[in-house]
Amino acid sequence: MVEETPQHNAKKTCWNCPAVKFKGHVDFRACGQEAFRKAASGQLVVECKRREEIGYFDPMSITYDSCPEFQKTDYGYLLRGMTVMILGIDGYLGWPLALKLASLGCKVTGIDNMLRRHLVSEIGAQSILPIGSVKKRIQNARDHLGLDIDFREMDLLNRDEFFEYVKEVQPESIIQYAEIPSAPYSMVDVDRAVKTINNNVIGTLHVMFAARDYAPETSIIKLGTMGEYGSPLTGRPIFEGLFPGDAILQYGDDEWSLGGELTPRDPVSFYHVSKVQGTFIVYESCKYWWLRSYDVMQGVVYGLQTPELIADKSLNTRFDIDEKWGTVVNRFVAQTAIGTPMTIYGKGNQIRGYISINDVMQCMVRMIANPPEPGQYEVVNQVTDLYSVRQIADTVAHIGKHEFGLDPTIQRYENPRVEAEDHPYEVLHTKLKDQFQFVSESDFEDEIRYMFKRLLEPDIKARIEKQQELLIPRTKWSGTTGPLKVLETFKP
Amino acid sequence: MVEETPQHNAKKTCWNCPAVKFKGHVDFRACGQEAFRKAASGQLVVECKRREEIGYFDPMSITYDSCPEFQKTDYGYLLRGMTVMILGIDGYLGWPLALKLASLGCKVTGIDNMLRRHLVSEIGAQSILPIGSVKKRIQNARDHLGLDIDFREMDLLNRDEFFEYVKEVQPESIIQYAEIPSAPYSMVDVDRAVKTINNNVIGTLHVMFAARDYAPETSIIKLGTMGEYGSPLTGRPIFEGLFPGDAILQYGDDEWSLGGELTPRDPVSFYHVSKVQGTFIVYESCKYWWLRSYDVMQGVVYGLQTPELIADKSLNTRFDIDEKWGTVVNRFVAQTAIGTPMTIYGKGNQIRGYISINDVMQCMVRMIANPPEPGQYEVVNQVTDLYSVRQIADTVAHIGKHEFGLDPTIQRYENPRVEAEDHPYEVLHTKLKDQFQFVSESDFEDEIRYMFKRLLEPDIKARIEKQQELLIPRTKWSGTTGPLKVLETFKP
Repeated sequence: MVEETPQHNAKKTCWNCPAVKFKGHVDFRACGQEAFRKAASGQLVVECKRREEIGYFDPMSITYDSCPEFQKTDYGYLLRGMTVMILGIDGYLGWPLALKLASLGCKVTGIDNMLRRHLVSEIGAQSILPIGSVKKRIQNARDHLGLDIDFREMDLLNRDEFFEYVKEVQPESIIQYAEIPSAPYSMVDVDRAVKTINNNVIGTLHVMFAARDYAPETSIIKLGTMGEYGSPLTGRPIFEGLFPGDAILQYGDDEWSLGGELTPRDPVSFYHVSKVQGTFIVYESCKYWWLRSYDVMQGVVYGLQTPELIADKSLNTRFDIDEKWGTVVNRFVAQTAIGTPMTIYGKGNQIRGYISINDVMQCMVRMIANPPEPGQYEVVNQVTDLYSVRQIADTVAHIGKHEFGLDPTIQRYENPRVEAEDHPYEVLHTKLKDQFQFVSESDFEDEIRYMFKRLLEPDIKARIEKQQELLIPRTKWSGTTGPLKVLETFKP
Repeated sequence: MVEETPQHNAKKTCWNCPAVKFKGHVDFRACGQEAFRKAASGQLVVECKRREEIGYFDPMSITYDSCPEFQKTDYGYLLRGMTVMILGIDGYLGWPLALKLASLGCKVTGIDNMLRRHLVSEIGAQSILPIGSVKKRIQNARDHLGLDIDFREMDLLNRDEFFEYVKEVQPESIIQYAEIPSAPYSMVDVDRAVKTINNNVIGTLHVMFAARDYAPETSIIKLGTMGEYGSPLTGRPIFEGLFPGDAILQYGDDEWSLGGELTPRDPVSFYHVSKVQGTFIVYESCKYWWLRSYDVMQGVVYGLQTPELIADKSLNTRFDIDEKWGTVVNRFVAQTAIGTPMTIYGKGNQIRGYISINDVMQCMVRMIANPPEPGQYEVVNQVTDLYSVRQIADTVAHIGKHEFGLDPTIQRYENPRVEAEDHPYEVLHTKLKDQFQFVSESDFEDEIRYMFKRLLEPDIKARIEKQQELLIPRTKWSGTTGPLKVLETFKP
């Protein structure tokens, strides 16, 4: 008889569960660490919002695998019909996450201010996978997958409306995806830098205050980026946000553990600066108010398939490929698909972390299923693989040439960014596996193959061709304008 | 014959001087480190904005002590009539700095949006040293000290107006003091947290963009706070912002220098968060655009005298003592002066760095005289002494009792803040001395004595009494309201 590995969160208790009512029972502020000691020794009693009939109980006495409010899923034990609020539900990641969670029985609700659609169309671009209005998308999800998704058009910066919404919905988890996600956009001019920082930083501050006042037990998942760290030229490891306990500082004749302190950040654009600024808001809010959060340092996401997204073409997520709103793998496939060169900035030796959209969804659901404990701020590096830009171009070229009969070209431009072009990159990313049982289900080459298949469909290809000028880099970190010099054009 | 110690910046060259025109001569973005190599080997030529007649020259070939545009002062060589722009010129530090610089022959110009006056009066408080309108203050400076100060009422957040101003003035140094400086204010509610972060972060972003576009050689001095660091419980040293080269990270079997990376931050209120957020903006702008800045992590400032301020009573700087806008030493003296208890939060073992307003002025002028080089971001810990809150209370009590016949009392309140009450605090602060020849001219006890003298003047004392209710702590970090519990009242 083979013993099954227990689910990652099977033995977690109500201490971590967002359905527990701590307020009124535990004064975290006053008792501080005392709350933990009490909890650990069974002296702390709480109530369950879902099972009022059990009255007061010791939160450590019920485990997820023994609670009827939890169901076993492929992602761990998950609160039945968990209420998850997705901020930025209309985005590249927001939409597939809504579908995934709804298909797992979650009560999904979300907001979007339609800013992303507006900003992309502002430069004359559009999602190259056609997407309908949110209303239409939700109707399609109902028709094809039988899912119910609640949507409100709302701006996170509209504080009163957002606070009302959190108060009404009482989310058990909040996913903060409502940020402007473009490095080049943030570097265009002062107006866009301010807009990015204002939107991202004040938005996140609103999330934390709303949680404090209306949903203090909610589990907050904040989207950060690997770009918060930069690429330390010494080659020191890039830890998961906080130094581990066995990271030692040596100075003079003494040494100290750096464990629990935030690692140095070196954000590579004002967009990335805004993410670091958000990190500090979340980190401190958890400390001040015993809120709980995973701050997810995500690598560059690529791909367009999840089981839900491909159930029907009308369920597409948005897919941008232009120089501002697209990202590198997706853009290279699109460029090769229409026979234009892949655009490399500088040497192309820049190494970054990558993850497929399908793996992102798995990670997110696992984290939603397994919330932090009160007061816990934890950083997760959400990447599966490291590649240099040149490696990506070579892989895309190889598949494009040999499997799709295309004629791939590479064009190197002078680098419009301020970044190291040759650097070590040692990223630690074991938490997802160790704490959440994440195992990647994606193969880099397969995802590229699948993208080629979709992007070579005549209607999609035509949409790429229509915006092909927008794929060429033009946003310089220096703030100066004018075309960038082409350094080299060649066939890989 | 005694040889005089050379001034700290005597041998600095035009490479560091903001009067040099780099733009058009040096493409920092394109050449990167190349610029330094060229400069070091005399291959780089620039022009001087002040001495057009010398034409092109090697910026390393002229030193401050050999340039006729520099004058020797007590603070080092200083550009004659240096144009210094003070943002927040009406504040506790802005005003005395304006007086000090003007008295050294600088061309001082400044803006203020009058927000500080508004916010203080909003809670029913006011500066307990009477201050006139800015117009009046400037008139007084002219009448009593013969100084000329240029002032515009302007909000740094009004971007177009501010950019025009920088363009017009062409500052050789910009002092960023235009920030909302109160930790308790930022913790009152979401509205004030947002206001603090928005004002401080977007304001600083405006400064950097204005410098990039209209004054790229200007030396930017950004006011930060020691509170950005928090108080690491391991007792590891609190470095000056960036790790020194001999700070080593040990992890696994390897080690790396952390030199040049930002040290971990742990800001203790949203106000402090806003300062960390500003740090990242300045740090990265210097990197992206070769701007130059000192980021000053300032300790808690106390006192009310500088030679200029005390030249006439009409030249007072503002002096706040309430729980939101005042700071601890000043408040304790005021409380003792009117016979009310000194208010300690929690145990009173919290250790912080302190510095007198007179020493602050000396530090600032020394840094203004000795600008960073292009691209240089440097952090300076601006403190002279470390005290626990209890030590301060004891010192104030001792002087109040024995020298002024007062009857000092201490009242300990439950701590409204989220902070460690017992912690080590090992602060490194040698840069001011080593790089700028700073030597403190203040004695803690003398400053307290002087404060007592002024605050015991009947009219001043009456002003304190009028707002004595506002000196009692009431802003809780938890966001809950209601009076704080008094833990203990005693005579020290």
